[in-house]
Amino acid sequence: MNKELINIGLMGFGNIGTGTYTTLEMNRDLIRTKTGIDFEITKILEKDVDRKRDIVVSKDKFTQDPDDLFLDPDIDIVVELLGGIQPATDLMLQAMDCGKHVVTANKAAVAANYDILREAAEKNKIMFRYEASVGGGIPILNALTTALRANSFIEILGILNGTTNYILSQMTDFGLEYEDVLKVAQEKGFAEADPTADVEGIDVANKLSILISLVFGIRVPPASIPTEGITKITKDDIKRAAKTGNKIKLIATAKKENGNLTYSVRPTLIPLSHPLAGVNNEFNAIFVKGNAVDELMFYGKGAGPLPTGSAVMGDVIEIGTAIIKGAAYDVKVAGGYQK
Amino acid sequence: MNKELINIGLMGFGNIGTGTYTTLEMNRDLIRTKTGIDFEITKILEKDVDRKRDIVVSKDKFTQDPDDLFLDPDIDIVVELLGGIQPATDLMLQAMDCGKHVVTANKAAVAANYDILREAAEKNKIMFRYEASVGGGIPILNALTTALRANSFIEILGILNGTTNYILSQMTDFGLEYEDVLKVAQEKGFAEADPTADVEGIDVANKLSILISLVFGIRVPPASIPTEGITKITKDDIKRAAKTGNKIKLIATAKKENGNLTYSVRPTLIPLSHPLAGVNNEFNAIFVKGNAVDELMFYGKGAGPLPTGSAVMGDVIEIGTAIIKGAAYDVKVAGGYQK
Repeated sequence: MNKELINIGLMGFGNIGTGTYTTLEMNRDLIRTKTGIDFEITKILEKDVDRKRDIVVSKDKFTQDPDDLFLDPDIDIVVELLGGIQPATDLMLQAMDCGKHVVTANKAAVAANYDILREAAEKNKIMFRYEASVGGGIPILNALTTALRANSFIEILGILNGTTNYILSQMTDFGLEYEDVLKVAQEKGFAEADPTADVEGIDVANKLSILISLVFGIRVPPASIPTEGITKITKDDIKRAAKTGNKIKLIATAKKENGNLTYSVRPTLIPLSHPLAGVNNEFNAIFVKGNAVDELMFYGKGAGPLPTGSAVMGDVIEIGTAIIKGAAYDVKVAGGYQK
Repeated sequence: MNKELINIGLMGFGNIGTGTYTTLEMNRDLIRTKTGIDFEITKILEKDVDRKRDIVVSKDKFTQDPDDLFLDPDIDIVVELLGGIQPATDLMLQAMDCGKHVVTANKAAVAANYDILREAAEKNKIMFRYEASVGGGIPILNALTTALRANSFIEILGILNGTTNYILSQMTDFGLEYEDVLKVAQEKGFAEADPTADVEGIDVANKLSILISLVFGIRVPPASIPTEGITKITKDDIKRAAKTGNKIKLIATAKKENGNLTYSVRPTLIPLSHPLAGVNNEFNAIFVKGNAVDELMFYGKGAGPLPTGSAVMGDVIEIGTAIIKGAAYDVKVAGGYQK
């Protein structure tokens, strides 16, 4: 197969949608040079055509009918950036049933419906990728499922939510109370008006569920992960931690010991000497330990339109190059799926 | 093509060779489960059959004739772990001419003969991978050439040599002079008897040359990189740096500004607030900035038999899975090669 134009249908055109669009526009020539492929976003499923955006997009691209994407034979890849479990999951399944490859940044939908989505991808012999769903721009899922495959993993520790890490960092650096930092974070747009999913650890539990599936090959739904947020942390807790040489971080962890996997999301004391202690404010990091590679840490921006756009477009390019090679499918094996 | 046994020929059975062998042995079942493939090291090119090693390998596997690997139709992948520019480069070229895919950990050979090796790989339509040549176990080359391809890169900063980072860390933490730490490092086996390639920055220049090729698509031979080692750093230099809130690190850097690329290897002041300042002792880290993903850092063990074995086996598994899919070749495009 030799096709050098790959068309993309986008579902959702909020922050991440515009970030993905901008990433492609700004690096289009470079991507063409590196891959030999022209990627083009030809259709966008979005109700709010007239919303104020920093970029100008032809109104012809917008549609409110998902079939305009799914039934378009010129579209190879559907990118889902709607967020939320539904209708995102059903739309991804429909896209797959129409033979479209699917890329998503939606941790809630992937964590809730991992098996259903993976099985639909396999049934339809298409590629399903979700790098942006964990760690934003940090290419952690790709590393775990390709370059690090020779390892048996022992432990993951992650700072996986920028809002809570920002709040804890500000409380630590300036000796402030939780409520005061949250208020400022909301004013600055670093925290949402309803911050529940972030501050109660729900967002992190979704991401940990996805990591556990990929790293340990075990399916643990987010609701089964013991989860505690940061709302009860006081500046006195943080001072007490500092006295013993520790910082308090909201840590997602999964650890294998004697064949047993334990996991949780909770505020945790991290020694100042640990590389995760230096991960502050909006940054995320994932620390993994493998039986061959030993300790690794991946650090970067866990959110934001362009970092997330980088991850989404990385998945799109992976699929596009696989299409050109006639190898755009994953192989099911006893332990899961191999790229 | 459906072949579920992939045979490997190993050239060189020193520390990295035994580390690669051990990585495969210890995780063989897991790798088979994850990939559906049985990988087997069937032949080893090595003169020193009787050297004391921690692992037992059947003497039948050893040979002193490279043709026993290159002309064996059952061997798909040749792994070069001899080190040094020659005969390693010629042996890799011969393996490629015999249709073997090639994996190497050899930064000196890849940096010196990058174009020749890439062109031979293209001519023979085989895959050539060298993840372990930069950053040991850290999967940085894979990330830069796959998941991060949607970025235009602005800057790389790397701590790419464990020996020099160990020496500088010990000088910093204990207020010691260079010569005293070097002596202890040599006794402990952290520095070689002739430490020139490490302490003069030559090893780092090789790695930076490879990174520049992949990140910026420009070929800069290691000898063209302005390079300064750590032999002139004193404990007073380090104290003075600390007074202004900095650490001294041996930094490989390449930066694009106004279309110009500048690069060097030299001792550099790193502010304590920078994530690279927390990278101590034998650890390596690569900090990259892309125009979409923004700041990223990859941290891990830059050397050692098992971390390097993890990277080598990661490449082997990538090639093995591509062979199964009938897609074990790279595509040449204007900007270089795409996976």
